[in-house]
Amino acid sequence: MEFSEIVQRRYSVKSYDPEKTISDAELKELFDEVVLSPSSFNLQHWTFVAVRDSALKKQLKEAAWGQSQMEDCSVAILVCGKLDAYRDAPKIYKEAPEGIQEKMLPMIQNFYEGKPQAQRDEAIRSASLAAMTLMYGATNRGWATGPMIGFDPEAVATILKLTSNLIPVMFIVLGHQKDAPRPRSYRHPVEDVVRLNTLDGPGLNGARNLLSGHQSP
Amino acid sequence: MEFSEIVQRRYSVKSYDPEKTISDAELKELFDEVVLSPSSFNLQHWTFVAVRDSALKKQLKEAAWGQSQMEDCSVAILVCGKLDAYRDAPKIYKEAPEGIQEKMLPMIQNFYEGKPQAQRDEAIRSASLAAMTLMYGATNRGWATGPMIGFDPEAVATILKLTSNLIPVMFIVLGHQKDAPRPRSYRHPVEDVVRLNTLDGPGLNGARNLLSGHQSP
Repeated sequence: MEFSEIVQRRYSVKSYDPEKTISDAELKELFDEVVLSPSSFNLQHWTFVAVRDSALKKQLKEAAWGQSQMEDCSVAILVCGKLDAYRDAPKIYKEAPEGIQEKMLPMIQNFYEGKPQAQRDEAIRSASLAAMTLMYGATNRGWATGPMIGFDPEAVATILKLTSNLIPVMFIVLGHQKDAPRPRSYRHPVEDVVRLNTLDGPGLNGARNLLSGHQSP
Repeated sequence: MEFSEIVQRRYSVKSYDPEKTISDAELKELFDEVVLSPSSFNLQHWTFVAVRDSALKKQLKEAAWGQSQMEDCSVAILVCGKLDAYRDAPKIYKEAPEGIQEKMLPMIQNFYEGKPQAQRDEAIRSASLAAMTLMYGATNRGWATGPMIGFDPEAVATILKLTSNLIPVMFIVLGHQKDAPRPRSYRHPVEDVVRLNTLDGPGLNGARNLLSGHQSP
């Protein structure tokens, strides 16, 4: 599907047909794309737990204050951020030219080691980039998706047996939409959220090509 | 362009042709899609500063330890996370049915107010979802992109006159690639990063449809 159509079609779906299932092969096709998402230093600070088991989904629903999409979806995918992804650098840069390795490995270590806030920021940032790819890839294949942060992260960590190096960043529930589509919810105008050159610069309105701060070098 | 082709084409580009420019109209088309990205409670915790001014790009390059893509790109877009986006809830839910407003507004307030870590996590999460849409939308229109976190956030905040409610989440530089494409960098196998049902469950390999924990309800 054309990307622009995907962007228009995707919205956060809350009601799913509990009869619909998704296969390993379908999931694999999705994740083959997800792992191509960018990440800082290519450290791929993400891990996914794809939950299809009915009993586990029921437990996750409890941990999500009873939200039924957690149980009715075809798969509930916990997108985790990996706090210690920087430790994978030697593996990731194994095939890189020697000069690159010697430059990157100490830089990466210095960027993350002993810096819990940097680790957390990065885990959320990279995992969220991957989550967006997952939603678009799923929409492209006809699935409805819903990102969710409304859950008890500690309860979820226990249910899914997370290790302490992983933090839940969001769930993506995925399945077939049951109810009729609802209209898209309100968005702030582009002009209000995009500023030109500095935050106090003009808003982007798309009709100011000759008057903006647009300078050819 | 088909989404799957976009995913394959997109990779992080570091060398840009400094002669290429981007117009307001082209930026507007991109951001019309970016703002359709999902966010928690639809709070749209993002603000963008699109920098095309040569002098400012040169200053940003200094703040990014001399990385030339900051200056050579057609536009350097700072993706900011908005810590106080929850304060926009009354505006965002203004047109929602009264029952929804009464339920959502206190819930949102309770979720964020006085919780700086939750505000920061959310700002990074939502801004990153939007950043991924920006990269795919740009790739779809033939632009090369590069996400960047290697910069001094305080220097950038000063140069771009950020207010204290905004945190820099990443830059996306955007332009025309100058050097020849390089091969895609290493990715962890899907089987290593996607676990089925629990973190200690089997890795997803796509060839286990009948043996996995896949249960029809």
